Amino acid sequence: MENTFVVIMAGGSGTRFWPLSKKAKPKQFLDVLGVGKTLLQMTFERFVEYIPAENIYIVSNELYKDVIKEQLPELNDDQILLEPFQRNTAPCIAYACYKIASRNPEAKVIVSPADHAIFKERNFYEAVKAAVDSVTDEDRLLTIGVTPNRPETGYGYIQYETEGTDRVKKVKTFTEKPQLELARKFLESGDFVWNAGVFVWSVKSIQKAFQKYLPEVDEVFAQLDSSYYTEEEGSLVKQAYGECKNISIDYGVMEKARNVYVVLGDYGWSDLGSWDSLYDVSEKDENGNVVEGNALLFNSNNNLVKGPKDKLVVLNGLDDFVIAYHDEAILITKKGSESQIRTIVNEVKIKQGKKYL
Amino acid sequence: MENTFVVIMAGGSGTRFWPLSKKAKPKQFLDVLGVGKTLLQMTFERFVEYIPAENIYIVSNELYKDVIKEQLPELNDDQILLEPFQRNTAPCIAYACYKIASRNPEAKVIVSPADHAIFKERNFYEAVKAAVDSVTDEDRLLTIGVTPNRPETGYGYIQYETEGTDRVKKVKTFTEKPQLELARKFLESGDFVWNAGVFVWSVKSIQKAFQKYLPEVDEVFAQLDSSYYTEEEGSLVKQAYGECKNISIDYGVMEKARNVYVVLGDYGWSDLGSWDSLYDVSEKDENGNVVEGNALLFNSNNNLVKGPKDKLVVLNGLDDFVIAYHDEAILITKKGSESQIRTIVNEVKIKQGKKYL
Repeated sequence: MENTFVVIMAGGSGTRFWPLSKKAKPKQFLDVLGVGKTLLQMTFERFVEYIPAENIYIVSNELYKDVIKEQLPELNDDQILLEPFQRNTAPCIAYACYKIASRNPEAKVIVSPADHAIFKERNFYEAVKAAVDSVTDEDRLLTIGVTPNRPETGYGYIQYETEGTDRVKKVKTFTEKPQLELARKFLESGDFVWNAGVFVWSVKSIQKAFQKYLPEVDEVFAQLDSSYYTEEEGSLVKQAYGECKNISIDYGVMEKARNVYVVLGDYGWSDLGSWDSLYDVSEKDENGNVVEGNALLFNSNNNLVKGPKDKLVVLNGLDDFVIAYHDEAILITKKGSESQIRTIVNEVKIKQGKKYL
Repeated sequence: MENTFVVIMAGGSGTRFWPLSKKAKPKQFLDVLGVGKTLLQMTFERFVEYIPAENIYIVSNELYKDVIKEQLPELNDDQILLEPFQRNTAPCIAYACYKIASRNPEAKVIVSPADHAIFKERNFYEAVKAAVDSVTDEDRLLTIGVTPNRPETGYGYIQYETEGTDRVKKVKTFTEKPQLELARKFLESGDFVWNAGVFVWSVKSIQKAFQKYLPEVDEVFAQLDSSYYTEEEGSLVKQAYGECKNISIDYGVMEKARNVYVVLGDYGWSDLGSWDSLYDVSEKDENGNVVEGNALLFNSNNNLVKGPKDKLVVLNGLDDFVIAYHDEAILITKKGSESQIRTIVNEVKIKQGKKYL
């Protein structure tokens, strides 16, 4: 895939996997799946099989520079794009795509979150390849869609025009996190896919879209054109971010543009957005328990136990719970309570200060 | 209370409070109640208010010599009686009582477990004082009874002759851990009390009882008479224990002797034999939770949380559990599962070795 680049967005600071994820080490930098690799490393490896390592860029907060260099020592500093603060996905993507464009105006870019799980990597690659082929000669903004298998209310949905046999379909609508009733209808209708948050486009197309829909973002990153890959990049980017508003690529560009397409695919995807979704994608023992760590379970079913191996956890008579722990904190929360995790983590912050976050 | 001595039995090695209690630090050496003092310290303080410190002796396994000296620095070495191995309560009591008798043949001795809780100390002292008075001129073996308030199946029961107004009653029968149906009958009948495991007698009376019912125990400790309080005590006691059988004072003496009496009393007693009994005696918050440590509870009721304060525990949606933890291990067990704790701890031993015990 000539002229193809990858941008991995690794700036999230979420605490949905608290106490394992903390501000100092968010989810993308953790071995959430217990496979010996962090989600960032898994994302990088998924691409580096097909894309040269020097074409893979990471965008993240400057807080995480060291952890990224530690986890991906093959990258050079030019490939690690550091944001001074979070401004959502539109500025993040603009920064990376404009920087790539300054060196290679023919570049095509695959933009991917750092913290999702993909279990059928071959299928994923084929979808991405179809997307890259599709944007090679066409002015299109592509997203990767995932065939839904349940009326999930935590995901975004993409409705597409069904005509034609091509797996690349024109997008009709985007819907963020529908209510259950609506999600059921989406699933039944057969012309909706989940939005995996993976985008594919040429730098030309995305620059054109920024010019049209987010001209102020285009302006700040276009004027840095001669400064990318130089020593002044860092300080100029800091200024640029100060001028950007906080806006997502979905809201700022994808939902407005007319040349938006989706590649259909089924590749065992999860956004790993919660303990429950981690439980869902993990291999269970005969009692439905998922254990990453050192645990002895008695009369206990359908639990997720996750923590370091040097600590022993013993459960007796517990069903349907998440038990997550490290040296300083232990979370024991009923499965299905993901909507409460944010409240809980806020309370921890209010009542205990930042020590545990 | 002239000539009165106390023997605190602190040799237990139980793991019923695992993971907080371990072989290296059994329950009597822990601050189980979260009051800033260990159960041994609380037991010592309960007596030292009325009995001179130099008359208080501790019997324990030689493993625990250092922890006893650390927790009760006011004791001298002669007051710490070390057993080479466990031989149940009869040899333990004989050793202590014969040693005391060798110095003071007029001594009266109060024998008490180190690991029980007593919440009405004044009532307890009055019962003990009544017991000491009762054995001063009479050849009697006394026990302290506790007015039962529920058909507890984990305790021993003492049936007494109801005649007379004296609070010291003649004992009719001993029954260990009755089935629930029987425990209910005991409670209804009104002539049963719980056996608190506290004994009061003169050294003369207990020596006479040993001579009659356990002559082999009498023999080994009587022949050490000139060696107590000397440098050879330790090695001779080691030999003596090798010759003793494993037998309890209840089975070996109290259930056989005819001069056994019980002092009735109600002094807020618990043997703290399990996590459940600790929960029962502890102060609860408005949701029925008992928390010793640093915890945030959401939608959680009737739990016992116990661990060091430098670790944060967050519960969400959990009811009726015990959560006990330290640096190396976390136990999460349904309340009311105390009979399974022994199995669980055995499994920990089998599967994980002794590291966590």
